[in-house]
Amino acid sequence: MVKLEKIQYKPIPVRDLLIEIKDLSELMIDLAYSAALFDNRELAEEVLELEEHVDALTYLLNMNVMIAVRDAQDAERLLGVQAVASAANKISDAAADIATIVTQNIRIHPIVTQAFMQVEEHLVRTRINPDSILVGEPLGKLELASRIGVDIIAIRRMGRWIINPKKINLENADILIARGAPHGIDELKKIAEGRVKSWD
Amino acid sequence: MVKLEKIQYKPIPVRDLLIEIKDLSELMIDLAYSAALFDNRELAEEVLELEEHVDALTYLLNMNVMIAVRDAQDAERLLGVQAVASAANKISDAAADIATIVTQNIRIHPIVTQAFMQVEEHLVRTRINPDSILVGEPLGKLELASRIGVDIIAIRRMGRWIINPKKINLENADILIARGAPHGIDELKKIAEGRVKSWD
Repeated sequence: MVKLEKIQYKPIPVRDLLIEIKDLSELMIDLAYSAALFDNRELAEEVLELEEHVDALTYLLNMNVMIAVRDAQDAERLLGVQAVASAANKISDAAADIATIVTQNIRIHPIVTQAFMQVEEHLVRTRINPDSILVGEPLGKLELASRIGVDIIAIRRMGRWIINPKKINLENADILIARGAPHGIDELKKIAEGRVKSWD
Repeated sequence: MVKLEKIQYKPIPVRDLLIEIKDLSELMIDLAYSAALFDNRELAEEVLELEEHVDALTYLLNMNVMIAVRDAQDAERLLGVQAVASAANKISDAAADIATIVTQNIRIHPIVTQAFMQVEEHLVRTRINPDSILVGEPLGKLELASRIGVDIIAIRRMGRWIINPKKINLENADILIARGAPHGIDELKKIAEGRVKSWD
């Protein structure tokens, strides 16, 4: 993740910024749905923080785009890049809107839960038990995506959320938010809870 | 899909409207990415039409919500439903913004293509050849999602797009837009092109 303390110009490749904005905005939608489904205030607050981060990245992208433009042809083509970044930023705003329902303690209507449950690819929250084969395993080497079609999109550890984790060793008591097809999600739950001790 | 000729009040369950709005908005993001990746103007125009449809559905949802409210408790809980519909509508607007880059003939910058290609789950456009085993098959019975982890999100046939097809027989020369994990997408391409004559 591109780190930003406060928004000031840094020469970061526009391509890196756009990929980060786009990936974060999509992740945020899933996190916002999870926050609503599991009525999880901390996760919702995490989404609101990410929204500010995406705003900052979009601002930086726009600065870098303007500096990169040399002629009319550059300008025309980079306008498209700005438009995509702005669209991704709008998606991130939409995620924040959903998260705000949770932080404002509006009770989630069953209709909303049903709408979020409807999707074939869905979301799960599970906790790693001490006797799970996941304990101590490096997340990257587990290759959950190719093995069971599941992505870990967030981990809660010691009261803090780690968003979009890549290189991390899983630990006992980690709470995982994962996305995937129903059978993969069931498999992950069984393995995390220690009910299944090996991969199929 | 809920059919709407022009926007006028119909008593449609709020739950059905919310699910339709949410599912369409997510589909539209993928379609807009496809339109940009494959520089496909017709698909982009399809996204713009869907955006108007989602606007109409959101309007109808808001009418049905207002009519359903009987007391303060109803109002509070249904406000959350409206907020989710409005967030999904914002996502649909973002998809339309991306589609507009394509309809305006702004050349897609390689940076944008790279950002869209980056996602692990990605998109493919493929055409069914006459000797493919897909010809004549009912899409629903193929169970592509559970079989190879792929969803067909749109089909172009005889110059028209069929969005989110469910019950349809596949035909020779259909152009498919599909979403899925890389290996499933490769498999689908091979089968559609007739290079592979059976499922693994």
